Amino acid sequence: MAVYTDVAFEDLNRLLADYDIGEAKSFKGIAEGVENSNFLLQTTKGDFILTLYEKRVSRQDLPFFLGLLEHLALRAIACPLPVHSRDGVQWTEVNGRPAAILTYLDGLSLRRPEVRHCAAVGRTLALLHDAGRDFSLRRPNALSLAGWHSLAEAVLGEADKVQSGLRELIASTLARLDQQWPSELPSGVIHADLFPDNVLFLDNAVSGLIDFYFACNDAYAYDLAIMLNAWCFESDGAYNVTKGRSLVEAYASNRALDRTERAALPILCQGAALRFLLTRLFDWLKRDPLALVRPKDPLDYAKRLRFHLSIEKPSGYGL
Amino acid sequence: MAVYTDVAFEDLNRLLADYDIGEAKSFKGIAEGVENSNFLLQTTKGDFILTLYEKRVSRQDLPFFLGLLEHLALRAIACPLPVHSRDGVQWTEVNGRPAAILTYLDGLSLRRPEVRHCAAVGRTLALLHDAGRDFSLRRPNALSLAGWHSLAEAVLGEADKVQSGLRELIASTLARLDQQWPSELPSGVIHADLFPDNVLFLDNAVSGLIDFYFACNDAYAYDLAIMLNAWCFESDGAYNVTKGRSLVEAYASNRALDRTERAALPILCQGAALRFLLTRLFDWLKRDPLALVRPKDPLDYAKRLRFHLSIEKPSGYGL
Repeated sequence: MAVYTDVAFEDLNRLLADYDIGEAKSFKGIAEGVENSNFLLQTTKGDFILTLYEKRVSRQDLPFFLGLLEHLALRAIACPLPVHSRDGVQWTEVNGRPAAILTYLDGLSLRRPEVRHCAAVGRTLALLHDAGRDFSLRRPNALSLAGWHSLAEAVLGEADKVQSGLRELIASTLARLDQQWPSELPSGVIHADLFPDNVLFLDNAVSGLIDFYFACNDAYAYDLAIMLNAWCFESDGAYNVTKGRSLVEAYASNRALDRTERAALPILCQGAALRFLLTRLFDWLKRDPLALVRPKDPLDYAKRLRFHLSIEKPSGYGL
Repeated sequence: MAVYTDVAFEDLNRLLADYDIGEAKSFKGIAEGVENSNFLLQTTKGDFILTLYEKRVSRQDLPFFLGLLEHLALRAIACPLPVHSRDGVQWTEVNGRPAAILTYLDGLSLRRPEVRHCAAVGRTLALLHDAGRDFSLRRPNALSLAGWHSLAEAVLGEADKVQSGLRELIASTLARLDQQWPSELPSGVIHADLFPDNVLFLDNAVSGLIDFYFACNDAYAYDLAIMLNAWCFESDGAYNVTKGRSLVEAYASNRALDRTERAALPILCQGAALRFLLTRLFDWLKRDPLALVRPKDPLDYAKRLRFHLSIEKPSGYGL
């Protein structure tokens, strides 16, 4: 969401000598992405993004992330395409950080998506899942059940300081998910963070998906559960049944959801809400006073989690 | 240097309805500027900057700042030009902040300017001073002697915590400047913050000047003293006499520097170094743990100030 590592004009010119994308015309740090440094680079040949990968993105995951973008772009998914250097490499190093140049996508992210936008992203998610089906690399989801336990250990002691009862909410949900988390659902490559921030629109149609740095192999329906959390609640915390139905049915029209996937939605939604509750709570409690990003309020996701705990069947979501 | 106030897609579209600059294609918060929120806005008609003015820029100064940009742009100074709305206004309001749309300038700022760049900006500064000569509005320099006293009061108590001896350095310099600060030098509109960050280059020529939000009426030679501080010291803190000479002589070739201005340079350089020492020290000591900008090290300017105190005549700068 900011620029952590500075790139001087002089470093940029050294980098561009290795690429066939023209001369720099303009270069600005932008406030976008997970914890990477991102720059909009305009050259005589077009617009690009330069990303420097900071601590949260591990070097050994770059072949998965960048390979996936290339794989998807070749299958007509509008996502940033890594630009190869003259030597054919997908990423290099700038100021001690792994760095990649990616194509730039037009479009704007929505703050208050409407029902039609939920339908559009539901369809896009199904196309994404389908396009990733034959991608050869694998990356386990570090932020699933085991990861939630580690996060919970780090935050439980202080959770009640943020909101009374939060500790018990997290502990009991984790215990329940340990028992009930499904492991046999149809799986493949998922985005795992497809929030409105990460979807670009032009004229109410999806023009691009960005920020694939949580992508991993996991249940397809879990990706849908993340989106139900991220797209279908109003700012007052209320679930919008019309948005939820539009999202899921548009998805299902493009990739059939089987009975087990539909039945698992309430538990998957609890897991997804817990995942964002835990990471936000962690960032909230452990925030670095020098950080460049304001932490997000974890309680939005505590509220969603309590809602999901009240739902027993997919019909509770209007499905 | 960051985005303080968010602008949602929906707010942007409402804003654009008042302008004749096409439809939004892309919109990104950028890490640039003093404490304003800046966005790069790409539309079907071109690239623009949307600036939301935060607390440091006062609403009543906007006619000066935006009027000055328009005045200078009409006189062939490459600076952002405020885009008028359909109703002919230079600025409006977005999310409770005054906001302006400005034209976008190509070019990159340098981290390590060379001698030729110092000459290029020296010449540009003279052209800027000349172009501002007939600008009708006036804005006193809030960060001159009286402003330094207020800042000093706020920081002196803690200055020695940052570096032993800093309190005495500041107090004695202020006392000296109270006696010696010149008041009769040729004056007019100055930029007052023309650091390398605020000058864009293309092919080693100046392509644009940005960030005029400290512009004010003051001695022309004081602007030059600010630039001697900002452009002519190496990263180890050493003054580079070749850069200093190039900057001043390129300036003087385009706007004659009279004898009193040259003679005043040592004291003006002390004042300029003190100004940045004080504002940086203030930001350092009073930093908001939730701020989005890392404060700059004030000691770079303590070092420059000590250097200037050792200079008695312009010849000490190689002039």
